Amino acid sequence: MDAALKNATHELVLANRAMAAEGVIDDFGHVSTRHPLDQNCFLLSRSNSPINVTIDDIMEFTIDGDPVAQNGRRIFAERYIHAAIYKVRPEVNCVIHHHAKSVLPFTITDIPLRPLFHMAAVIGPEVPSWDSQNEFGDTNMLVDSMDMGKSLAATLGNHTCALLRRHGAVCVEETIAGACLVAVYLKENADLMRQALALSSNLSGLTQGEIRKSRAMQLTELPLERAWKYWKTKAGFRGI
Amino acid sequence: MDAALKNATHELVLANRAMAAEGVIDDFGHVSTRHPLDQNCFLLSRSNSPINVTIDDIMEFTIDGDPVAQNGRRIFAERYIHAAIYKVRPEVNCVIHHHAKSVLPFTITDIPLRPLFHMAAVIGPEVPSWDSQNEFGDTNMLVDSMDMGKSLAATLGNHTCALLRRHGAVCVEETIAGACLVAVYLKENADLMRQALALSSNLSGLTQGEIRKSRAMQLTELPLERAWKYWKTKAGFRGI
Amino acid sequence: MDAALKNATHELVLANRAMAAEGVIDDFGHVSTRHPLDQNCFLLSRSNSPINVTIDDIMEFTIDGDPVAQNGRRIFAERYIHAAIYKVRPEVNCVIHHHAKSVLPFTITDIPLRPLFHMAAVIGPEVPSWDSQNEFGDTNMLVDSMDMGKSLAATLGNHTCALLRRHGAVCVEETIAGACLVAVYLKENADLMRQALALSSNLSGLTQGEIRKSRAMQLTELPLERAWKYWKTKAGFRGI
Amino acid sequence: MDAALKNATHELVLANRAMAAEGVIDDFGHVSTRHPLDQNCFLLSRSNSPINVTIDDIMEFTIDGDPVAQNGRRIFAERYIHAAIYKVRPEVNCVIHHHAKSVLPFTITDIPLRPLFHMAAVIGPEVPSWDSQNEFGDTNMLVDSMDMGKSLAATLGNHTCALLRRHGAVCVEETIAGACLVAVYLKENADLMRQALALSSNLSGLTQGEIRKSRAMQLTELPLERAWKYWKTKAGFRGI
Repeated sequence: MDAALKNATHELVLANRAMAAEGVIDDFGHVSTRHPLDQNCFLLSRSNSPINVTIDDIMEFTIDGDPVAQNGRRIFAERYIHAAIYKVRPEVNCVIHHHAKSVLPFTITDIPLRPLFHMAAVIGPEVPSWDSQNEFGDTNMLVDSMDMGKSLAATLGNHTCALLRRHGAVCVEETIAGACLVAVYLKENADLMRQALALSSNLSGLTQGEIRKSRAMQLTELPLERAWKYWKTKAGFRGI
Repeated sequence: MDAALKNATHELVLANRAMAAEGVIDDFGHVSTRHPLDQNCFLLSRSNSPINVTIDDIMEFTIDGDPVAQNGRRIFAERYIHAAIYKVRPEVNCVIHHHAKSVLPFTITDIPLRPLFHMAAVIGPEVPSWDSQNEFGDTNMLVDSMDMGKSLAATLGNHTCALLRRHGAVCVEETIAGACLVAVYLKENADLMRQALALSSNLSGLTQGEIRKSRAMQLTELPLERAWKYWKTKAGFRGI
Repeated sequence: MDAALKNATHELVLANRAMAAEGVIDDFGHVSTRHPLDQNCFLLSRSNSPINVTIDDIMEFTIDGDPVAQNGRRIFAERYIHAAIYKVRPEVNCVIHHHAKSVLPFTITDIPLRPLFHMAAVIGPEVPSWDSQNEFGDTNMLVDSMDMGKSLAATLGNHTCALLRRHGAVCVEETIAGACLVAVYLKENADLMRQALALSSNLSGLTQGEIRKSRAMQLTELPLERAWKYWKTKAGFRGI
Repeated sequence: MDAALKNATHELVLANRAMAAEGVIDDFGHVSTRHPLDQNCFLLSRSNSPINVTIDDIMEFTIDGDPVAQNGRRIFAERYIHAAIYKVRPEVNCVIHHHAKSVLPFTITDIPLRPLFHMAAVIGPEVPSWDSQNEFGDTNMLVDSMDMGKSLAATLGNHTCALLRRHGAVCVEETIAGACLVAVYLKENADLMRQALALSSNLSGLTQGEIRKSRAMQLTELPLERAWKYWKTKAGFRGI
């Protein structure tokens, strides 16, 4: 296997385990990365919970969401979330879809999530909300077609994450470690916002300048390397 | 042992461990499955906490709640919950009784539980509430007679789960994995509802159509298989 | 060593580990049992956190709180809690002092704790509150004299547990397993009460009859044996 | 290596692991100790999460925040927090900077933290708050210069801990174990305060006399030794 592909696959497996260890993804949810050698392909596990994903589960999908070689394996109905985002966001190389518990209250209330402490700056200044009802009416809530994926990607726009009403969230970034950092701190920030709102309706969050400067710093090599090593330890990760 | 019985016993032990690992059942609570070869029998552990249940603990009970062969073993006083439900719900093959912490607040307040996010659709549109006081007055709170079991089963009706006031809940489904999914997401949904109500009194939950369609999808093989494998990992389950 | 003493010592070590595993006691707090052969003596660890207590830590104390043979070991300043209670409650054979997190809010507010669900009946109908300020003014908050122990024991009266204002709680019962059950469900019930009060100010707890009947049942051999085995597993207890 | 230096290094590694095990520090945050042989130096890990810190990570820094011998290693941008505090607080021998989750709500609301139960007396009667905006305007929120460190140290004054608005906290003490105790109970007390305020706006915390007396007792050898051994067990610490 090509070294870049091998490395991307290895990192993707760790990202799956890290999202499980950090409590971002439980039984349902998935992490993908763009194919390092083919901008029109992405890597994603076959149907499996992130805690269980191994290198042998990783499959290649076209940017339309089709498996390159299915070989009888079960695949995620929601792979279109990944396909549609990779299509319109050429700089994005990792997509995480999850139902983190602390985020869910914000998908059923009208309180806008915004970054309240420095590490949460990485989620960006605004978190848009997508509601499948608007275009698709009553569904089984899965983003299981390219049309739904495109609609979600349109709501995401140039943001780093978006909420799915009554469902969960999607987080994207240029690197796998970056997307993991966004997912972890979206979750932490949601918890903080809920707890702080119980204390006071008057929260003093980050300024726009603080968000911009903190976010730029957080996505540099030094903090990402440290976080990556931390998740590896928490996930008890000793290779694939 | 017959292969179907062996398999059902094996699955029942895993379901016990899964409910422990997921924090649905602590020291008290139990999981049963209908006997795969005899519609008028069910399998249930002798008196033991789910975290400790092994294949040797599994006993057979008649649909009246009597042990087929007690052999001096201690048995659950509340086996009548299972018996009474199997009697009136022929399609049900698994019953779980538990006191999940997040569910308890809804057994002492008048706020009706309803599914608020897609995975919780599996609990169904409504969760009825049974109060032992109504027919039985002051008791030790255990459902320890066939009369009490029948009363509870009547309140459960055709629903997937019911609350027991000041006590806990009961969850039922056609398959063991299905009932486990109901129990896990009843718990998750209760936590979500409590957290969301602290943020806003105006929650936008699933529509009736979304509940129906999501629930139908969740009880199919693909998601159940994935969840089952996930619980196995979380429970550290390596055979019985 | 006498078999009864050996057994009591063994059980006391497990009770220490169980209280640690259940999150009742962290670094500070202690569990004692009355000496099985001498009504005027009790067994208590030397200064050590319950998670670390082994059989070699167990010391004998007189009912006045003096070590029978100190041999240079460091001892708990608060041993008088145990001494004073054993003195006035001849039927009590186990005393647990702890600062369980969920209980603390009720030691700094005026909301009376009462049992809200069936398992919590074991704490009894009422939980009195003791404030060291009333008789002793500003102190270092430790119950470190016989006078303070007696004052606390007087507030405890015939109850099963009492709160210490701005400090923690004390739980007592006839058996070690019984006292552990009280401690675990005082903690669970406090968590439930806090969560339920956030949902509604109108809670429907157990009736007096339900408390009396449930409590009597919970302190019988069947449930205590099951809980004891459960704690053993949770504490990873494989002998001393 | 000198015995005192070896011992300080060893204790510093354990303090890192303890802060990780206690949930005080996750991926980001750090612990330092003053050099036992040189009042103008301190010991701090190279860039690494506390859960991963080993003896080989420990580096020496001058009291101006410069590494004595960097040897190509990556270092914490926020080492100036430590340097600036050691400069103006000669009695302080340990500094901990963290973003403990329960503390964060108090960095974005105006509710003053104060010790509410006996173990929390160790944090002292008041917790001042430092806001980087006041002197430095929009930044990336890191305390990454000696000027910022000095400003923070000025707000800390003679206190035991201080909050960093929209960021986290800093805790200091004469000994490593003492600073760990402050960090753990700052976190516990914040959790308690949030939970208690949800129950009642009228909290009865410790008196000034109780704070002074309890704090003096908590920083003596007996409780610190017990806590230290407890953290060692929780961190699964078996040497470095």
